[in-house]
Parts: sequence; C-alpha cells; structure tokens
Amino acid sequence: MAGGPAGSLGDMPKIAYLGPEGTFCEAALRSLAPEAERMPSANVSAALAAARAGEADGAVVPLENSVEGAITVTLDELAWGGALLISAELLLPVEFSLLARPGTEIPHIKRVYTHPAAITQCRGYLARELPDAVVIAAPSTAGAAQEVSIPGSPYDAAIGPAIAGEHYGLVELAARIGDRDDTVTRFVLVNRPGGPLPAPTGADRTSLVAFLRDDHPGALLEMLSEFAVRGVNLTRIESRPTGDGIGRYFFHFDAEGHVAEARVGEALSGLHRLCADVRFLGSYPRADRVSPQLRTGTAEPDFAEAADWLARVRSGEG
Amino acid sequence: MAGGPAGSLGDMPKIAYLGPEGTFCEAALRSLAPEAERMPSANVSAALAAARAGEADGAVVPLENSVEGAITVTLDELAWGGALLISAELLLPVEFSLLARPGTEIPHIKRVYTHPAAITQCRGYLARELPDAVVIAAPSTAGAAQEVSIPGSPYDAAIGPAIAGEHYGLVELAARIGDRDDTVTRFVLVNRPGGPLPAPTGADRTSLVAFLRDDHPGALLEMLSEFAVRGVNLTRIESRPTGDGIGRYFFHFDAEGHVAEARVGEALSGLHRLCADVRFLGSYPRADRVSPQLRTGTAEPDFAEAADWLARVRSGEG
Amino acid sequence: MAGGPAGSLGDMPKIAYLGPEGTFCEAALRSLAPEAERMPSANVSAALAAARAGEADGAVVPLENSVEGAITVTLDELAWGGALLISAELLLPVEFSLLARPGTEIPHIKRVYTHPAAITQCRGYLARELPDAVVIAAPSTAGAAQEVSIPGSPYDAAIGPAIAGEHYGLVELAARIGDRDDTVTRFVLVNRPGGPLPAPTGADRTSLVAFLRDDHPGALLEMLSEFAVRGVNLTRIESRPTGDGIGRYFFHFDAEGHVAEARVGEALSGLHRLCADVRFLGSYPRADRVSPQLRTGTAEPDFAEAADWLARVRSGEG
Amino acid sequence: MAGGPAGSLGDMPKIAYLGPEGTFCEAALRSLAPEAERMPSANVSAALAAARAGEADGAVVPLENSVEGAITVTLDELAWGGALLISAELLLPVEFSLLARPGTEIPHIKRVYTHPAAITQCRGYLARELPDAVVIAAPSTAGAAQEVSIPGSPYDAAIGPAIAGEHYGLVELAARIGDRDDTVTRFVLVNRPGGPLPAPTGADRTSLVAFLRDDHPGALLEMLSEFAVRGVNLTRIESRPTGDGIGRYFFHFDAEGHVAEARVGEALSGLHRLCADVRFLGSYPRADRVSPQLRTGTAEPDFAEAADWLARVRSGEG
Repeated sequence: MAGGPAGSLGDMPKIAYLGPEGTFCEAALRSLAPEAERMPSANVSAALAAARAGEADGAVVPLENSVEGAITVTLDELAWGGALLISAELLLPVEFSLLARPGTEIPHIKRVYTHPAAITQCRGYLARELPDAVVIAAPSTAGAAQEVSIPGSPYDAAIGPAIAGEHYGLVELAARIGDRDDTVTRFVLVNRPGGPLPAPTGADRTSLVAFLRDDHPGALLEMLSEFAVRGVNLTRIESRPTGDGIGRYFFHFDAEGHVAEARVGEALSGLHRLCADVRFLGSYPRADRVSPQLRTGTAEPDFAEAADWLARVRSGEG
Repeated sequence: MAGGPAGSLGDMPKIAYLGPEGTFCEAALRSLAPEAERMPSANVSAALAAARAGEADGAVVPLENSVEGAITVTLDELAWGGALLISAELLLPVEFSLLARPGTEIPHIKRVYTHPAAITQCRGYLARELPDAVVIAAPSTAGAAQEVSIPGSPYDAAIGPAIAGEHYGLVELAARIGDRDDTVTRFVLVNRPGGPLPAPTGADRTSLVAFLRDDHPGALLEMLSEFAVRGVNLTRIESRPTGDGIGRYFFHFDAEGHVAEARVGEALSGLHRLCADVRFLGSYPRADRVSPQLRTGTAEPDFAEAADWLARVRSGEG
Repeated sequence: MAGGPAGSLGDMPKIAYLGPEGTFCEAALRSLAPEAERMPSANVSAALAAARAGEADGAVVPLENSVEGAITVTLDELAWGGALLISAELLLPVEFSLLARPGTEIPHIKRVYTHPAAITQCRGYLARELPDAVVIAAPSTAGAAQEVSIPGSPYDAAIGPAIAGEHYGLVELAARIGDRDDTVTRFVLVNRPGGPLPAPTGADRTSLVAFLRDDHPGALLEMLSEFAVRGVNLTRIESRPTGDGIGRYFFHFDAEGHVAEARVGEALSGLHRLCADVRFLGSYPRADRVSPQLRTGTAEPDFAEAADWLARVRSGEG
Repeated sequence: MAGGPAGSLGDMPKIAYLGPEGTFCEAALRSLAPEAERMPSANVSAALAAARAGEADGAVVPLENSVEGAITVTLDELAWGGALLISAELLLPVEFSLLARPGTEIPHIKRVYTHPAAITQCRGYLARELPDAVVIAAPSTAGAAQEVSIPGSPYDAAIGPAIAGEHYGLVELAARIGDRDDTVTRFVLVNRPGGPLPAPTGADRTSLVAFLRDDHPGALLEMLSEFAVRGVNLTRIESRPTGDGIGRYFFHFDAEGHVAEARVGEALSGLHRLCADVRFLGSYPRADRVSPQLRTGTAEPDFAEAADWLARVRSGEG
C-alpha cells in the first residue's frame, strides 16, 4: 500500500472510515482492505484528517452515489485539504435491510428508525409491508441500528445495511428492500502521497482537480479539448464553487487510463499548462475492470513511435 | 408575473418558499416579490410541489451557494418533477447574526444553537468571542431562532439570518459574524409554464437541463460546442447522476442571454437535436445585470442579416 | 436550366466551354447538356465571361483534376468575377488516345505532338511503344490534334481525347494509353443567378467561397466548426491567396447536401456571420450520386422538430 | 549549410535554381546564398532533382505567390519526391521592368514579348503607355529577355525582372510597371537531410505534409485541433489531390515556430499519431521575422514546468 510510514501497530495497516461501525463505508473498507485495522471516524473530514496526520495509514470515504450524486464534502476535502492520493475504488451496491432485535416480528413493528435517504429509497417497501408504521428520521443508518439494538429502545426496527445488523446484534427481517436494486455508492481508499502509484493494469482510472486560470468563456471547452485531443475519455466531471462568488468554479475529473500512460500523461501536462493549478488525485484500477477503447493513434506504441519520429526529425535526419 | 391562473385570493400572488419564517429564503422572497403572500413550506420539494399543484402561484427556492455549491434537491426537482420555469433570480449575501432573547448579554451565552453550515461558516467568530460556549446542531437556522425564542429554552443564543431574529422577537447581539463576508446564495422564483416568458432585458440568463442520447466519449464536448459555435457563454454547469448507475449523468446549464435571442435559440435547438431530451428552465433577467460580451457575428442583427442572405441564396438570387 | 434570359437562338441553350472543339471540356459539355449549342472559348475566363455577359446561357469549365488538383483560374473566376452558380457537375475520366491521319501506322510515327500534361501522363506508353519517337509540346491536346490533321503537318500523331480525333478526322491508333486509368477531371456547368436552384435530390453538393474577417489564428478551425456542429461534411477545401500578400487566404469549400436543407442552410448562415463575406456558388446533384451519412439529430425532421420545440419554449409553454 | 557532402568545387556551395539566368528565382538565390555557385535548371523538378542527386548542394525554388497561389509542382515534389528540407525562405517582390536593346525608345516599341502572367499583371501599364503595341506570349520572362537581346529579334522589348535585363544586356526603359506593387513570391532554399536543422531564432516557421489515415468527415478538423490545442498557429494550408480520385487530398501546412520547441514538437507528434504519414519539410527562420504571439501556457518554460510536474506526479510525490 502507498502512503509512507504507517502509524499502525505491527504490519497491519490502520484505515480510517466514515463510522460508526456498521456503515456502508465499513463494508467498503472490509472489501477494499480486508486485513486492515478499522478506525471509525465521526465524519468524512475526520477520516481524511486521520489519514493526513498519520493517525491512520489511509482512509475509506464515499465519493459519489448513483442516485444522490457527488459527496461534496469528499470532493472539497480532496481538492483543498492536505494532499491525499486515491489508490483503490469500490462500487458498493446500496442494499437496505429491515433490522430488529431478536424476537421481533414484522407485524409487530410500529416505529421504524432510519436515515432520511433510506426512507426515500425504501418508500415502496414501507408503503406495502409496513403501511401503519411510523418512520422516524435518524442521523445515520448505522446509528439507527445502534439505537434499535439498545434494549428498551422506543424504536422497533431500523433500516440499514446488513453489516449494521451484524454489528449491533440485530436480526435481518427483510433484505434488499430498496425501491431500486441498482443503487451504488463509489468508495475510494486514499493514502498520503510518497510511495509508488498503483501499477497500471490496463483498466485504470485517473482522478484530478483543475482550477481555471481565469473564468473566461470557453475555458471548460478548452480543458475538455486537452483530454479529447489525446483520446482520453472522461468518466466523471463535477463543478464545485471556488468560494469566490457565484459563477466561479473548479472542476473534478475522472479520466480513463493511468498517468503512467503517455496519452494520460500528456493530457494532464496540457491541462497543467492551461490551468492555474491541477491537483493529481491518483491513478488506480477501475472497480468495474472496463478497459478503455483506444482511438487509433493513442496507444502506448503510437506515442513511442511518434517520439522516435520526432527525435529523428529534430536531429535533422528528415 | 408568469404562471397561469393563480390560486391566490384577490390580486396578491401567493408564493411558497423554504420555511419556516425567518429563513434566508424568506428574505429572498421578500426581495423578489415584496407584494406576495408568503407561504412557508417544510422543504424545497414541498415548496415546488405547491407551485406545481396550484396551491401557490410560484415558489422561491435556493439553487446554489457560493461556498456549498449546488442545492442538489432543487436541481433534481427542476429536472425530473413537473415542469416549472424560472422567472427571476436573486443573489442574497449570507450574513449570519448572533440572536438571543432580549436581555441576554454576550458574556452570559453558554449554549449556542444553529445549523451545522452556520457552525462551519462562523467558526472564527465562535472561537474568538464565545470560546467557552457549547455549540449544538439544529435542523435549520430559522428553526434554531424559533427554539431560542421560547422562554425557558435550554439554548442561550441562535446563529441565523437577521430576519429570523425579527420574526421570533430576538435581539441581534452581533451582525455579519461569518468568517467570509462574501458568501452568497442564489435563489430563483419559479412558476408554472403557460404565460409569456420574462421579456429580454439585454442582461439575461437561460437555464436548462440536458439528457445525453448516449453517454459516449466526447458527448459533453459536443454539447459545449453547440453553445460555443453560436457564441453563447455558459455561466454554470453541473453534472447530476441519472440514477442509472455510476458514470451516467445529465447536465444543468446556465447560459448568458435569452431564448428569444437568435444565438440562444439556435444553440438550444442544436442541443435539442443532439440530446435525448432538453428541458428548458427559463430565461430571466440576471441578478447581477451583467450583459454578455458578444462575439462578432452573433448579435441579433447578424442573425437577421444571415437569415436574409440565406433566403436570397435559396431563392436562387445568388 | 437556371440562368435567366437566354442569348440562344430558338429554345436550344447555348453553352460556352473551354475550346477548341475536341477538348475534354467539350466532351463534358456533350454529357452535361447534350441538347445545347456548343460555343468554344479561348480559355476558362472567356467561357465564363460569355456566360456572364449573356452571350451564352451558361458555361462548362474544369474545376479540379484528380492528379493536377484545382484549376485555379476557375476557382478565382468564380470567387472574384461576376456571380455565377454551379447547376451541375460531371466527373470525366481523362483517357488519352493516340491519334493520327488515316493511313498512318504506329511503326512509322516519328514525331508526336501533345500537351505537356499528356506527355507526363502517357510516359509509360511512349517509352514502351514509341521509344524512338520525338515528343513535342503543344499548347493543348485538342490543338495538337487540329495541327496533326493538317496535311503536310510536321507531326505524325497527336495524343488527346478520342473526341478530338473525331473532330479533326483522325484515326484512333490506340486508346487509354495513360499510365493511370483512373484520372478524372471534374467539370461544372455554371449559369447566371436568377432562376430557381436545382431541386434537392438527397445526394447533392454545395459549393461556396468564404473570405475571413481577419486572418487570426484558429479562423479556419472556426469555419470548419460551423460545418461540423451541424453535421455537414466537407468534400473539398482549397485555400487561395487574396492577393494581399503571402499568408492572406480565402477558402473554397464543397459541402455535402443542398442549401435548401436545414443543416446546410444553418451552417452557411453561421459561416456568413463568422466571415467577412461568403459567396454561394450553388447546390446541385453530385455526379457520384453518393448520399451523405447523416449524424443523428441533423436530418430534416430533426431540425423541424427542434424548431417546433423552440417555438413552444419561446411561447412560454415550457 | 545543411545538406551532407557537397558536390561543389572548393568551399563554395552549388545551388540549383529555376532558370534560365535572369529569373526571379535567380534573384532569390542571389539573396539567399550570395556566395553560392548558381546552377540554372530547366524547371522546378530538375532543380530539386539536382539537389537530391548531389549534383547541387541545394536548390532554390518558388513555393507560392501572393497572387497566383501555390506553385503546385513544388508542393508535389516536396511531398512525393526524395526527401528535402527547407533551410531558408525569402519573400521577393515581383517587380516587372520594360527591357529593350540599347538605343530602343518607348515610342518605337511595336512588339512586346513576355510571359502570360506578366501580361496579366502589367495590363494597366500596357494599355496606358503602349496602347498600340502587340504583346506576344513567351515561355518565361527571362526567356523573353534572352530572345529580345538577340540582334535582329522580331521583338522590340521584353517585360521581366530587372535582373534579366542585366543578364542579357538590355536597358531598363521603365521599372515597376506591374498593376500592383505588392505582389510577392516566396522562395525556399532546400537541402538534402542529414545535417543539423537551422537553429531556432524565436521567429521560425515549420513546414510539413500530412496524409490522412482515411478521409473521414472531420479529419481536417482533427488535424487542425492537434495544432490548436498546443497553441501552434498555422500560416498556410493547402490541399492537394493524392491522385486517387476526386475528393482524396493530402495537406501542406506551414506552422509558426520551430520543431525544436516543445509546443511544435508535441503538435507534430500528435499529427504523426493521427495521420497515415507526416513528412517534415523543415524548420527555418521566417523571412518576415515575425515572432509568434504565444498563448498562455504554451511557451518553453510552461512545457518544462509541466514535464517536471508530471514526473513528480508519476513518481508518486503528488
């Protein structure tokens, strides 16, 4: 794992994550780094701060959700906070379960406790199976499970990830109760810079942040052209306010490919020349293992051949 | 005001807004429609639903903030919900005040209640002036003021807009206590479609949503080219997930100019042909009164002359 | 035929062409307008002048050759001279024949007379079949045939189009003696403007000339973008000097499609707005009958639908 | 001088040029290489062949004229013939003089001999000063002067460059008799590849030829984008037929800057990857000494800084 001197005990890295125990983020961390010591943090900023300060060797945080969109606190932390590099990503299906204390049966559930996002996403199930239950908003799905697990809790059930049920000793009365079964959250593992980047696999992604030199018309078109001319496809683009007033933005990009590849490296260099600042956020294997379809003339051998040709031309060989 | 048959009593339009009373949104509504009857709604979705259903003649909701970024619930409601058109916008400085019951003095404040965003944005003041106070998170700044106004409240002060203090009979102990004094929220007034659009003023903005036909590489570049070729500058671009999985987005655009203008109309038509769907969200005067700098050949007379020329060419006159 | 009041006798149009009789241009005219009275002219400029002055109803002139390239005198005459519109085009294979007075046999040929372009293009045949013959340069292939046809001519044979042999009573001793059998010259029939344009056929070409407003970097890219954004492909582009010094150019374009079509009309209008001047040179059926492959969203119904949508949007219907 | 082992006697290079003596091309050669031994050639192809074969150390040929446009034989020879590199260019004003044998006076001139281009370009002078003279077409202006110099010639005067008069012992009866006084021909000095390129001067030009991989729509736009994205301006673009049928072209480009510069090198590499073939024709000082106006981010230090940044990023330093 990249990330410099670890603050962990023994050889087991310690990874901060968006807690408490039982969150989807913990599930993501278990999948991304099964061996790691898990360090729950109160929020995304705290998890990233722990990684930056060396209290943890890295952090796992959500970056975007297929329904809710970008997790803006993550975007802004990665853009403005101390440098961190993404070394891995995970696409985690958001699957909600109905969780209750052992012995509870569905017909007896009168009060359900969960996060508002879960209320929205499980609206069909609730209307169909628990039409008479009152649903109360909780600060997080894991927190709801924790609350329900307390004997004497005023709530009969929680809606949350299955992992939260396991953590807090709840029974899963129903699984996959979301209205959509394809909602996904993308989590990333970040580390302090300093070590080698993950090696290119042929199916990689590169993340970066670009700050415009000035916000002239066509600036975004120019940025996109830097990628397009080198045949580098973008898979995500997010604008975020710089804080300097309405109409002033900076941009997050995810691009296909690895910065070690010539087409990506040249595109990033071009962006660097064009922009006031570019922050590299990492090159790492794509979770979906999709390899880019390269446009003719943009593969590694094409760049190598062009470089040879240019060297000959410059030497006067013609 | 645009918006079709009004559901208001008498001649006074009724406008829904993000309540409760005392929010920045109410302040925006007072400025955008001073004469209107104000109808507080529990949240953005409820305010827009009231406007759609005819319970209100329109709604005022926040669209973006210069620090926090887009208000995604507003973006998604305007994109997916029943059609509504923006007829006006307002840039409202976000100025926080320290509000307390009459008789309270700053040295006596031990417990402060406010929304987490306000905690973040007033961090400097709190550390400097109230280093020993405990700060507790509230669901909204206006709600915090409301709570503090109750005699016997466990909270000594709220942080919120000055207007909230007025509403709930609180005294403004300190004004403009935010760390930045240039934070701005952009609010929009929306109405049901049906009436005439606001007349062009020469300093207008056009908002729209575009759904890609398919998410091929370069699709965003193509969309931007439709604007660029007609000399239409974009002032905002936001990607939002379609809900169909990570990597599938649609786009919100704000463009300079009015759809009644030829260059904007042609750009929107081009976008309509390019995209699976384009939803027009309105043309309306810019709050900042900035007129676009038109590229040579893209003013109204240029389009008129080109149309005449084309007609002559097509008629065979040469 | 387009072209206004004819200067012809009776109903038969009179068409000027690059003479003398027996040229490839006459062959093109016979094919383009079999019924026309043929009026040979001394050169391209004279043929076009006759059409402009009403001495002829039109003119047939060469525009480009697949080996030699543009016929620059034609390009410059169409760009700078009195307005003329192309109403038809023809791709004529350039096939050379060995022509001699009746009774001449190949072994007796000692002196061959032809135009230098024919010498170049028949080099292989001459070396192989007439290795000992002297080849003398003539001002034109038809002129060479005319000269050879005179009894007592110092030349034994001419190389030229078969039609020249017919005209001047020569025998075709060998046909298709060119080194390449795919050389083609493109001829166009031009008329004075004034009548209706040729009707769209679905496989049309549009020719035009564009003069830059100023010769700034990227001007050509901007012009090409006007076509590209509307999905209009270019089949030919030629730069020509404006005469105002090295580095100052104007451009000839051939585009797929007919100006009556929406995508072509909008592209030309856009070019007209962008440029100091655009001269329309006609829309006419392609000689090769190739229909354009339209990009999604650029067919006539797409433009019609977009126009309807825009009208609805502008009316406030949303 | 670049160009490999010289075929010249002593140290004086021998340079072929478009003869005969007295042509504008000779004047160009005298200016470009005053010390060189001059070797007149019958035509452009012969001059270039001499340079390729080592019979000459280089050749001076015309490339374009501000009124006539490209010299297509030069373009095609440089594109298809054995490799040659341009090492210098010259812009030579085309100034015509009226030349006659000593003792001839203007009122006695009845027959004028000159090249048709000169007839066209001196039309005003001829009509004004020699309204009754017959003007006869000659194969070249220098050839006309040579012919007139022969005692007993049927011609009384020639029109040609002053240098032709000097060569053939004629008197200059009138100077600068062209209708335009700003016509210019651009000549280039070419050499065999092998030596070092001319050093960058800050005001250089790079010439090249690009052959498309396939002639798809938008191919030219793609080529231009390779230059535009790197901030490299084009000063000339010419399309030429490949010979494979109407509608199949290759392109000559002149770009600002020197291939040794990063932005030019990267643009050429990009073009090389995009195209089926790119032939480099040289980087050499501009005759007009105009330095390019560099777009922000495209100067040498910008490329160097970007390369350093990329190296750091790739090393994992972030």
